[in-house]
Amino acid sequence: MHSDVAVLGLGQMGSALAAAFLRAGHRVTVWNRTEAKVAPLVAQGAHAATSAQEAQHSAPVVVACVLDYPALAEILDPALPGILVNLTSGSPEQARAMAGPRYVDGGIMTTPPGIGDQGSMILYSGDQDAFETAKDLLSVLAEPVNLGADPGLAALYDTALLGIMWATLTGWLHASALVTADGATAQHFTPLATRWLGPVAGFISTYAEQVDAGDYPGSDATLDVHLATLDHLVHASEVRKIDAALPRLFHDYAQKAVEAGHGTDGWARIIELLRAKAA
Amino acid sequence: MHSDVAVLGLGQMGSALAAAFLRAGHRVTVWNRTEAKVAPLVAQGAHAATSAQEAQHSAPVVVACVLDYPALAEILDPALPGILVNLTSGSPEQARAMAGPRYVDGGIMTTPPGIGDQGSMILYSGDQDAFETAKDLLSVLAEPVNLGADPGLAALYDTALLGIMWATLTGWLHASALVTADGATAQHFTPLATRWLGPVAGFISTYAEQVDAGDYPGSDATLDVHLATLDHLVHASEVRKIDAALPRLFHDYAQKAVEAGHGTDGWARIIELLRAKAA
Ligand SMILES: NC(=O)c1ccc[n+]([C@@H]2O[C@H](COP(=O)([O-])OP(=O)(O)OC[C@H]3O[C@@H](n4cnc5c(N)ncnc54)[C@H](OP(=O)(O)O)[C@@H]3O)[C@@H](O)[C@H]2O)c1
Ligand SMILES: NC(=O)c1ccc[n+]([C@@H]2O[C@H](COP(=O)([O-])OP(=O)(O)OC[C@H]3O[C@@H](n4cnc5c(N)ncnc54)[C@H](OP(=O)(O)O)[C@@H]3O)[C@@H](O)[C@H]2O)c1
Repeated sequence: MHSDVAVLGLGQMGSALAAAFLRAGHRVTVWNRTEAKVAPLVAQGAHAATSAQEAQHSAPVVVACVLDYPALAEILDPALPGILVNLTSGSPEQARAMAGPRYVDGGIMTTPPGIGDQGSMILYSGDQDAFETAKDLLSVLAEPVNLGADPGLAALYDTALLGIMWATLTGWLHASALVTADGATAQHFTPLATRWLGPVAGFISTYAEQVDAGDYPGSDATLDVHLATLDHLVHASEVRKIDAALPRLFHDYAQKAVEAGHGTDGWARIIELLRAKAA
Repeated sequence: MHSDVAVLGLGQMGSALAAAFLRAGHRVTVWNRTEAKVAPLVAQGAHAATSAQEAQHSAPVVVACVLDYPALAEILDPALPGILVNLTSGSPEQARAMAGPRYVDGGIMTTPPGIGDQGSMILYSGDQDAFETAKDLLSVLAEPVNLGADPGLAALYDTALLGIMWATLTGWLHASALVTADGATAQHFTPLATRWLGPVAGFISTYAEQVDAGDYPGSDATLDVHLATLDHLVHASEVRKIDAALPRLFHDYAQKAVEAGHGTDGWARIIELLRAKAA
């Protein structure tokens, strides 16, 4: 084994990973299905393997970052001798099907330019001995966040966090549609929006305890009050001919909870509506 | 005029406002429909007016914080001599109907315990001379953010920001439902979620320029990629019998944009779907 790490897949993300290992002074073997993407990494000092199999035998840690699990299945060597760190996105179920000694799954919570930045995070879960062995090496990519032995947990947290991202981005786009309809600019509104995410993060931290306790006191703001203010948002959207599907969904959750007698509870109560109906 | 400021309405919020003025050493007149709420403020040094009208003639600045606009209309003196700062929640249209000299509208972006904290913000808009006159006084409540002369803008920004709050909170609750279905706790997941709001705020700042420019390059992540990962989120929700209405809404927006030929644009393109159809 002449390298410290091998990178399989040199798309946008795999290329960023390989480059970060090289910048940190590691000996890196690279492989990509389409050869054209190999040359820039070789120019940065990487060793080019002539096959995916050769790459997998060149280093004690193999980092895979291809499009999806079917692509990974095509190139994976069942006789892989070292640790496999799989940063290919997939479902928790796909990750769990890979469970085994020396298997670590990962979810990259940044875009390629964020690789190498310690403010970024990569979630890991799976074989804990393998993770401990590879941890220092992986630290050069981003801050490693270890979620434990269940190999599906990194993918689950990954998709859950992306869900929060889509919700926040779309809520912000809806808000921007509202204010720009009245002549404001998104760039005037947005610094207030990002500042407002600070208090919102504070609410979330408070509600996390409530979710785990299954008890949702409305001590800061009640669902009755939320429902009344949601009416304003739906109305303000409709008056401006802005799609109100998002606020109407929140309105309907609040209304359902209020009608079920929870009007004096807080917003965290909504999780009960999202969860599986009791069997 | 024997006071610096009068507060009309001593509900949870009005009481917090009056107390903050008193703590800052101001002479404060208070009035509330139901007398029982007056005594605690008198004990803190406030002067109790015997009528709403008397209160409105006792100080050059009157801060109103009652339930809604109809409640305000019942108590407002048309011959009010000073500045009216209306912190009662309402629609932009309701605020605009109050437009006039000495009228300032406000949106309080915190709960009563956040009053008096300079990290909190209150949005103001309306008569700019009146705002400048009252600004120092209002600064003891929270950081005043001046949105200019349109009296409807504070209410519009207020409801827009609350929309972002509901989106983020509900996205987080959905994410918490996912991870707790697999045995994790909300308190384990949530520190990662609040940390993740940092990068998300960064995306929003980038997209604000795109929204104003009407140009949405997918240089960080394309709608094609979002659509594929949204499939995972919808699937992970369904497998766990978690309500998928929220991710399905985002999925449908992404799909519509992709089908319209915008697959290589970024998420900010979704605002075009939210906005009024071209006439
Ligand atoms: N980009 C991001 O911001 C980001 C963030 C988090 C996670 N991820 C995840 O990282 C993974 C890679 O993403 P990317 O952005 O690098 O995508 P990309 O630029 O499209 O690269 C895809 C890579 O997969 C390879 N590939 C596709 N099908 C293959 C097959 N059948 N056999 C072998 N190799 C195959 C491609 O090889 P060719 O060059 O031969 O096509 C290429 O190396 C994905 O799972 C993605 O979800 C990306
Ligand atoms: N609490 C918050 O976190 C928060 C945050 C931002 C904005 N706000 C806004 O602040 C305003 C007040 O909220 P709050 O939390 O203080 O509510 P609250 O505790 O329910 O108090 C409501 C106040 O309105 C008065 N009122 C209701 N109907 C009236 C009428 N017809 N005539 C005269 N007075 C009347 C009540 O008087 P009585 O005591 O006689 O009933 C009481 O003083 C609302 O517009 C709310 O949206 C509140």
